[in-house]
Amino acid sequence: MTLHALTASEVQRRIQANTLTLEEYVAALLARHQARDHDVRAWAYLDPETATESARRLDRLAPEERGSLHGFVIGVKDVINTKDFPTRHNSSYHAQDGAQIDASTVAILRANGALIMGKTTTAEFAAASTGPGTKNPHDLTRSPGGSSSGSGAAVADLQVPIGLGTQTIGSIARPASFNGVYGFKPTWNAISSEGQKTSAPTLDTFGFMSRSVEDLQALADVFALRDDVVPERVQLSSARFALVRSPAWSQAGPGTIAAMERGAQILREAGATVDEVDLPSDFDDILTHQGRIMDAEAGVAFFKEYSTARAHLSDKLQDLAAKVHTSSKKEFVQALDKVASLRPRIDEIADGYTAIITPSAVDVAPVGPEWTGNSILNGIWTALHVPVLNVPGFQGEGDMPVGLSLVTSRYRDQHLLQVAAAVGPLFEAKGGWKSRL
Amino acid sequence: MTLHALTASEVQRRIQANTLTLEEYVAALLARHQARDHDVRAWAYLDPETATESARRLDRLAPEERGSLHGFVIGVKDVINTKDFPTRHNSSYHAQDGAQIDASTVAILRANGALIMGKTTTAEFAAASTGPGTKNPHDLTRSPGGSSSGSGAAVADLQVPIGLGTQTIGSIARPASFNGVYGFKPTWNAISSEGQKTSAPTLDTFGFMSRSVEDLQALADVFALRDDVVPERVQLSSARFALVRSPAWSQAGPGTIAAMERGAQILREAGATVDEVDLPSDFDDILTHQGRIMDAEAGVAFFKEYSTARAHLSDKLQDLAAKVHTSSKKEFVQALDKVASLRPRIDEIADGYTAIITPSAVDVAPVGPEWTGNSILNGIWTALHVPVLNVPGFQGEGDMPVGLSLVTSRYRDQHLLQVAAAVGPLFEAKGGWKSRL
Repeated sequence: MTLHALTASEVQRRIQANTLTLEEYVAALLARHQARDHDVRAWAYLDPETATESARRLDRLAPEERGSLHGFVIGVKDVINTKDFPTRHNSSYHAQDGAQIDASTVAILRANGALIMGKTTTAEFAAASTGPGTKNPHDLTRSPGGSSSGSGAAVADLQVPIGLGTQTIGSIARPASFNGVYGFKPTWNAISSEGQKTSAPTLDTFGFMSRSVEDLQALADVFALRDDVVPERVQLSSARFALVRSPAWSQAGPGTIAAMERGAQILREAGATVDEVDLPSDFDDILTHQGRIMDAEAGVAFFKEYSTARAHLSDKLQDLAAKVHTSSKKEFVQALDKVASLRPRIDEIADGYTAIITPSAVDVAPVGPEWTGNSILNGIWTALHVPVLNVPGFQGEGDMPVGLSLVTSRYRDQHLLQVAAAVGPLFEAKGGWKSRL
Repeated sequence: MTLHALTASEVQRRIQANTLTLEEYVAALLARHQARDHDVRAWAYLDPETATESARRLDRLAPEERGSLHGFVIGVKDVINTKDFPTRHNSSYHAQDGAQIDASTVAILRANGALIMGKTTTAEFAAASTGPGTKNPHDLTRSPGGSSSGSGAAVADLQVPIGLGTQTIGSIARPASFNGVYGFKPTWNAISSEGQKTSAPTLDTFGFMSRSVEDLQALADVFALRDDVVPERVQLSSARFALVRSPAWSQAGPGTIAAMERGAQILREAGATVDEVDLPSDFDDILTHQGRIMDAEAGVAFFKEYSTARAHLSDKLQDLAAKVHTSSKKEFVQALDKVASLRPRIDEIADGYTAIITPSAVDVAPVGPEWTGNSILNGIWTALHVPVLNVPGFQGEGDMPVGLSLVTSRYRDQHLLQVAAAVGPLFEAKGGWKSRL
């Protein structure tokens, strides 16, 4: 296997066995980047010299000085602050600006020995639905999704093993599905979002993408994700899944419909029970509520940019920010309270199953780089604050990847990783899609 | 009246009338600071040259270039990022650090023409209950409260007319009461908290202090606080107040007990109806829930500092941060859901009245600068996300000020300012306390 195709955990093992240095590995990633960047354009900022110097510095550390993420190389979505690289949010608003302080997550990763490779592209402020010009590496005529566009594309394209992202509606699960990689959005605020751009505080969630569950697990442990009960290994023969199509199912296309059927079939063949579960009618309006929360909170979140340099915002962002002056507070508060009342109810439903299986996107990545795709099947889970983990493996139109989301109740993030460890290899082996990258 | 004793709105009018320049006014504030700082110690950072230069720059603007806050001079709590001054959080963790980017609120104030004077002191990361060494200007043997210690003390001591603050439990209302100034904590997230230190995202709220309701109003308008219905002027003769002692009333001391009685009497004398209202028993446990939210969320919020440089945290903060590894997620989620279910209920109760009148602190400021005082009577309102406005005017032990909080339902911030405009002058005139500063 070529060096750039290794997962972060595999790289770590080779470094521990003294068969690889970080400098050699980063050189392989940079060569991959150089060969592919003209086509994929996944990076907002990547300086080969800085990356190489960081690798050398980490290589010089004695074994006892190395952190638990030594060997992990990470791309950071460009709405998450970094002290050494500019943070530009895909906006001319930040052309001359820079936070020069690490976001909470970046600081924790560095303290544990990870190497921050550079910044990955994002839709404008992680809030627009127009892409940053990044291409889907599996088909350059298609979108990689968004708003975590660059992290999804770079991880899929073997330019970096881990990409950080943020999700306010569907900005991790959707690009993970479109690019055929794992994407994990933990429970809301289980990991601090301090230092990443605020879009809607009730919805904004930090997360990450990778090409293996093992890599997600290593990051989850470093970020101190913890269930009340240490989760057991999941045995599929005694597992029970809820197939939840969710209120916007009518918008699902053939790729997603087939993935849901094939996923259920694979799990049943492995001995698991799969129940088709309809959510109670109380959940019917949740997307309306989520939209009202998004609009009202984004109006507040972007009022700084709107007040100080409106012309630097796209028309879409200006419209969103202007809602600070127009959104109905009564409808907003009712939406907040209604969604809050549904959170314990989805927990109760989810706790009756090993996990919920639900779509990650309406279908394969759309053709054309401009539009990052429909997030209507993601918003419910983000609003409910539950952990969501996209597992790749299914195939749709044009040999493109399709993923499915595993969902469980709040603060069962570690349990969900155990589910993914059992389900992921099966979906990857039997789902029908293989990356040719 | 000496220049330094003017409110921001009074300063603005003099500047508009060409009877005062900002440079003259800032010189008066700096003289006041120089005379008093040795005793009060309200500032974490204040550079006279920079302040004077900023004043000159603003003085040079043509009238049509001046913002709606031209003439407003503002002290910024040192957990709120500023691009030109260090932000140190009263922690050695940030001795060498600085965000070098303005918090959302600071950027909006600057864009509207305000002058940022410097950084006011805070308890460590706005989360410790040990003070920053700042003294209560009305009695130097007493605490100014916290965690917005410097903003409360500097505004009361006529060193600056406006101070910014943050409240997670009682960090604005309590110091406002202890220092005899107005303090306004708007509805949760009605103003973006981006760029201020996160302690507990479900509770953290931005707010500000002043010596007049007019000044609060000017800031509220600039921050786009907006009710669904434009509020009418409050006529006390037809007003109806709910006197709510709240679940921790048993801890109220003589100053607060007397203020509640006197406040009700003043309102009744003005023709208002004042009902004594007990909250339903569902609210009895809210402080337990609020404490569980605080502990669990602070564990996440301070995990960055805990992971990267634990030794820079005080023992108190280390204990709080360590809860990331120990707090019960089940109890935390139950607390989140329970408090969320109480928010529409307090809105419904509050909407039956012109406003709720409730304590701002258990009593006058405690003796000794170390402890910032008891916040047990504040936490309920912060957790419920409702706007809270401390009105000064009452007198307790040692001729010290005591305030009362006005509270209404979420997103009736502008209505609450109208209530304060009617109630404030009465409480100040008839409450029994006058500042001798």
